[in-house]
Amino acid sequence: MLFKIKLLNWSAGRPVIIIGKKIAEKLTLHVNDRVLIIHEGGRTVAVVDLSSKILKEDEVAVSDEIIEVLGLKETSLIELSFVPQPKSINLILKKLNGYRLKKHEIEIIIKDIVTNALTEAEIAYFVAAVYKNGMTFSETKNLTEAMVNSGEKLNLRQPFIVDKHSIGGVAGNRVTPILVSICASAGLIMPKTSSRAITSAAGTADVIEAVARVEFKLDEIKEIISKTNACIVWGGSLGISPADDKLIQIEKLINIDPEAQLLASIMSKKIAVGSKYVLIDIPYGVSAKVDKKQALSLKNKFEKLAKVFKIKMKCILTDGSQPIGNGIGPILEIKDVLSVLNLKEDRPLDLENKSLLIAGEILELAGKAKKGKGIMIAKRILYSGEALDKFKEIIEAQGGKLDGLKEAEFKKEILAEKIGKIIKIDNKIMNSLGRILGAPADKAAGIYLFKHVGDKIKKGEKIMTLFSESKEKMKNALEFYKENPTILK
Amino acid sequence: MLFKIKLLNWSAGRPVIIIGKKIAEKLTLHVNDRVLIIHEGGRTVAVVDLSSKILKEDEVAVSDEIIEVLGLKETSLIELSFVPQPKSINLILKKLNGYRLKKHEIEIIIKDIVTNALTEAEIAYFVAAVYKNGMTFSETKNLTEAMVNSGEKLNLRQPFIVDKHSIGGVAGNRVTPILVSICASAGLIMPKTSSRAITSAAGTADVIEAVARVEFKLDEIKEIISKTNACIVWGGSLGISPADDKLIQIEKLINIDPEAQLLASIMSKKIAVGSKYVLIDIPYGVSAKVDKKQALSLKNKFEKLAKVFKIKMKCILTDGSQPIGNGIGPILEIKDVLSVLNLKEDRPLDLENKSLLIAGEILELAGKAKKGKGIMIAKRILYSGEALDKFKEIIEAQGGKLDGLKEAEFKKEILAEKIGKIIKIDNKIMNSLGRILGAPADKAAGIYLFKHVGDKIKKGEKIMTLFSESKEKMKNALEFYKENPTILK
Repeated sequence: MLFKIKLLNWSAGRPVIIIGKKIAEKLTLHVNDRVLIIHEGGRTVAVVDLSSKILKEDEVAVSDEIIEVLGLKETSLIELSFVPQPKSINLILKKLNGYRLKKHEIEIIIKDIVTNALTEAEIAYFVAAVYKNGMTFSETKNLTEAMVNSGEKLNLRQPFIVDKHSIGGVAGNRVTPILVSICASAGLIMPKTSSRAITSAAGTADVIEAVARVEFKLDEIKEIISKTNACIVWGGSLGISPADDKLIQIEKLINIDPEAQLLASIMSKKIAVGSKYVLIDIPYGVSAKVDKKQALSLKNKFEKLAKVFKIKMKCILTDGSQPIGNGIGPILEIKDVLSVLNLKEDRPLDLENKSLLIAGEILELAGKAKKGKGIMIAKRILYSGEALDKFKEIIEAQGGKLDGLKEAEFKKEILAEKIGKIIKIDNKIMNSLGRILGAPADKAAGIYLFKHVGDKIKKGEKIMTLFSESKEKMKNALEFYKENPTILK
Repeated sequence: MLFKIKLLNWSAGRPVIIIGKKIAEKLTLHVNDRVLIIHEGGRTVAVVDLSSKILKEDEVAVSDEIIEVLGLKETSLIELSFVPQPKSINLILKKLNGYRLKKHEIEIIIKDIVTNALTEAEIAYFVAAVYKNGMTFSETKNLTEAMVNSGEKLNLRQPFIVDKHSIGGVAGNRVTPILVSICASAGLIMPKTSSRAITSAAGTADVIEAVARVEFKLDEIKEIISKTNACIVWGGSLGISPADDKLIQIEKLINIDPEAQLLASIMSKKIAVGSKYVLIDIPYGVSAKVDKKQALSLKNKFEKLAKVFKIKMKCILTDGSQPIGNGIGPILEIKDVLSVLNLKEDRPLDLENKSLLIAGEILELAGKAKKGKGIMIAKRILYSGEALDKFKEIIEAQGGKLDGLKEAEFKKEILAEKIGKIIKIDNKIMNSLGRILGAPADKAAGIYLFKHVGDKIKKGEKIMTLFSESKEKMKNALEFYKENPTILK
């Protein structure tokens, strides 16, 4: 059966074909199935979407990705055919059944993920398989390598390339801009690629975007680093470890992060930017991503993996049981960062101390400070104002400026209903609350905390302020807060 | 941020919103994420698709399902908001972590599947969880009930409602039309709902569709049954156990069929049509779906489940090691059926014998024959021509006719290259071959087998004929056959 092409001028980001419902039933095709498109210009595999109205009986619509590959015109006719499943399907099934995957088998799966040959549901089976059965050290190593090789690399040809990474899960916790500024001041090269929020109210990339550009090409990053020693950019636009970006999307659907994938995800990105000295922050505790036992297991595996890839690494376990800093949300967090860099009297000291700790560790790791002296040097750089100057330099190199940070249109203060003491602030609930308020998309949305765990409160005292750009979102957030009163006495 | 609506007149079968890529990145939304749409007309959750061209910065496109629910017009403005995950996500995670699900928890998951609240990837996690951890008997029972209650039911108010089901996996094997005709002739009521092909070259619904309509509403089915005692229709259009249809789509992606889901799938459909006597055919063996051990385990569980739901059930284990009948593909299979019903001299006796066996068992199960005498009565009905008349009646009641079955445009004979003996015909490879040739969509496409396992062959003798409606598909099939020479000496 031959089909006419309906042109939609639709770029879906992957090859998609829209088929009429009636025809799809006859072809026994469903949403997200794969189908082979045959045309005189060649063949290509596409993912199926359904429609019951826009198409005539003998018509299908295809995304621009297919039009380009096959050179289709409005007058083209195509045929649809059954396509045998990609080889990676059997390999995913093999892993799901508890068998080890060989190096070339992992490469096939990663390649099929990057080329969109696997659908979201098939990738979910792979994630579930790794989650349930784990991966051996050698599988994890091969997964890391396959991820590095699936994408672009940054070649800086510098000796002191350092990096840090937090496994995440703590709300606020915006240490990166502070410690990058300290390390770059000390002469280290720090090509920091950060993520946007996955399940949190803001990722470092979202926060920096409140004051500067974060999307660059690899060449532009080289230029920024040559001027300032560092950058703080979004990793997603660089084409580094693209398989990992896809895996993270699928993992976050049900909030799992299989250990092997977490290891490979972080390691692959550090290798791809050429880091030689890496500090890994593993926050643990109630409402953090991991507990102490898991944190120790991760530490061991990270350090073992780093040796293989000739990276000098240190993992530190930190307290992840409550948010760090006062702001949660892009602008609220950058305000915290600026208040620390400007040494304001009411700056959040938990944020300052953690930033100094990590900066100090990195300085020691890269040989810029003697053992035990790193934190002292970090303090000197912060307190002298050098770090602030460096941060301004970086923001300027990324086309930004630090003034004119606006406040959200709607504000709501949450007051203590009675006297007591803060005994818990749940990271996950804080992040959900921040997202409901509109963060990270609405830059000024989020939460400002006046209290932390252990603080005493009087009746009527401010506990936090909620910020939102929309009445509707504020309403949703207040409902959510009522059901999840995060701050307990 | 407010968005304008671009009307696409696009009915996607589920609520979908197309968002520009740039905006999606800022909102940290990805393909298949969920988003809450807020409008003065109400709120609804939609699944995200991306586009980089058709939309302006402040525009999104939504499927008709959303337009209907919210009453949107071209001038409407909507807001997008973070949506907390549906409750079923945590329940899926609970199952993936190896815990038992309670009755109401299973009901929540099934409801979210039916209402499209879960994406394909999330359903894949559920399937993987059940596949890896299994389900207890009570979970399986609750899953069955939840599936029944998720859909429509057929109320026939008749005493002798019988049914049969094969767990599938054998190519050809079109016993249903024959045995339904025999049972209906004997006065039994048989509301047979069949599937279309899932991974095979044809399902019973595809085969009957070659000669009659198979898509009806429940009321129409009642009328057909009141005329003829039976029907042979597609189950998918009836709204019976809709959760199961969705689960099957996701299972087939990596060819798994977790035992608990297979049990609940079959049982739920039998319960929904009100069957009181059910015969289950479990083909086992090399290249079948299950081996003997799995077949016995299934048999036990089926019978235990049937007791709970007050269904008189018998499970029989049959030889599933090779295709049954000669034809594989809709028209080729209906020809086999007609050749058996017409008692043609060259009819496939394996197909006839299996049809008689199952019909006989059903007659005994429903008390229409004494123990051991069922097959004799079935033979009498078949050999007297009564079954043929009944089949004609059913086809006529379903608006069909049996003459003018056409042959495919392209034919290719496969000849034996040397003298020998057939030692294996792989069901899975035969089904793939049939699909590559164009079955089940091209009704006349498929394979006609001249030989079965154990047959001797001379050099140059015909082994099989391939049929296709397209030169291109025939070429693909011959390439596939070369790599998978299914018939071995």
